[in-house]
Amino acid sequence: MSGRQLYFKCECLQKGGAFKFRGACNAVFSLNDEDASKGVVTHSSGNHAAALALAAKLRGIPSYIVIPKNAPTCKIENVKRYGGQIVWSEASVQSREEVANKVWQETGAIFIHPYNDGRILSGQGTISLEILEQVPHIDTLVVPISGGGLISGIALAAKSINPAIRIFAAEPKGANDAALSKAAGRIIRLPETDTIADGLRAFLGDFTWPVVRDLVEDIITVEDSEIIKATKLCFEILKVVVEPSGAIGLAAVLSDTFQKNPSWKECNHIGIVISGGNVDLAVLWDSLKKGK
Amino acid sequence: MSGRQLYFKCECLQKGGAFKFRGACNAVFSLNDEDASKGVVTHSSGNHAAALALAAKLRGIPSYIVIPKNAPTCKIENVKRYGGQIVWSEASVQSREEVANKVWQETGAIFIHPYNDGRILSGQGTISLEILEQVPHIDTLVVPISGGGLISGIALAAKSINPAIRIFAAEPKGANDAALSKAAGRIIRLPETDTIADGLRAFLGDFTWPVVRDLVEDIITVEDSEIIKATKLCFEILKVVVEPSGAIGLAAVLSDTFQKNPSWKECNHIGIVISGGNVDLAVLWDSLKKGK
Repeated sequence: MSGRQLYFKCECLQKGGAFKFRGACNAVFSLNDEDASKGVVTHSSGNHAAALALAAKLRGIPSYIVIPKNAPTCKIENVKRYGGQIVWSEASVQSREEVANKVWQETGAIFIHPYNDGRILSGQGTISLEILEQVPHIDTLVVPISGGGLISGIALAAKSINPAIRIFAAEPKGANDAALSKAAGRIIRLPETDTIADGLRAFLGDFTWPVVRDLVEDIITVEDSEIIKATKLCFEILKVVVEPSGAIGLAAVLSDTFQKNPSWKECNHIGIVISGGNVDLAVLWDSLKKGK
Repeated sequence: MSGRQLYFKCECLQKGGAFKFRGACNAVFSLNDEDASKGVVTHSSGNHAAALALAAKLRGIPSYIVIPKNAPTCKIENVKRYGGQIVWSEASVQSREEVANKVWQETGAIFIHPYNDGRILSGQGTISLEILEQVPHIDTLVVPISGGGLISGIALAAKSINPAIRIFAAEPKGANDAALSKAAGRIIRLPETDTIADGLRAFLGDFTWPVVRDLVEDIITVEDSEIIKATKLCFEILKVVVEPSGAIGLAAVLSDTFQKNPSWKECNHIGIVISGGNVDLAVLWDSLKKGK
């Protein structure tokens, strides 16, 4: 379909159903015993939340998870399943940060940011080690971008192994802060976002932005309709359960933007990172039917 | 959830989306050149059909596929995708056989039965080789049963490696011909079947029956509601796309029938064969909602 060889890194099969467990695990197990004993706190649209709860459970320390009220039910269930203590916030990034700050003041729990943190980046970077061990001739990686933790870790690790490898970000048109930031040469935040890809609504941080600026070749933005089509393909052809945010890399590779760009004709062995598979089937199905 | 270690053999990830490619491939590539040149013909509710079309395409010979008019759309699409020539029949087994016979008379194509054929059995048996290579300490295998080709191949191969391994069949209550046959000590056919597991409506053949009679410890029958619940679990926890027929092994292991049987308490390392993942998402979703 794409005229290239595609390799899928299925992080939906990761513990917790998303790549986030890599970074969370690295962060939690990097803490010294005294810090760890107070527990960890974070705010997250969901996958980082479940991952941190699971990592904390494995280390036997408490986790406090600030979750916006509009988070998908299945992601909230995951946090509960792994023993995270849920603290509710409003949907805005500002509200999430305020509530997390309050928890920190009350408990002394160590704040683990979902992406703007070196321990998190390093953890996510292990994806590159695995992909390039399994398929050394991959020349291109396409990675969903939200706050930039995933792609920064992947880019740093992959480029250190093969400096010629090309890294592309895939981003929804309705949350295109990374594309705008890259064009402007500075971090741009959006007043609001509108996309079915609920995991891709965060904005770049000061830690991830320089990596995205310097190591990511381009940001490919796609419509929600393309994301939905790619999600369906993952179900029907790959037979894996993905969330729309997870399917965006495939959407980007199949998009006209990518296919018709002459300087990307040589991208022949493409690794696509399917970032996660935590999706409410009911909600997904309604989206597929509407073909929104 | 089951109190045991479960290992899943995900044949939904097989070429063609189901285990059927193993047997079809073995059958098509066993033909001598003269026989092969006339092509192959079969009748099938779907997965064998797509598998045979694909195997024939790989060998460069024609395939004629008799498909009942009520087959799921996605399975018909798969046959077309692999270049099979579709010939329609009525839903009944009798009509399928008649139409296939007519194609044979007209073309001389070699008939490859979906399950009642040694080449097919041998192909499906490769599943056991792989499972027991990957997880040598598996003590139990739970396998969907329809015509018996899958479980016969698996039982023959697994028992030849480890005679102590226990083989269970999983069957829908609404198509329980294997359970009735086992109880009666002879092949029983049903006047009709009624189950969401559209791949499990066939009856045992004279080739598969003796293997099921002698090597399969028991047939565990489950309600459609249990199949639906297991299908959902596969999507939500395993993150793999399965068809209801494919999820029945998990349904069987979670059933009271299995859990409460004292003589099966020692089944601690269970390999569950997920037979396929070719499902119309629209149809599946409606079933899940109804919780039929």
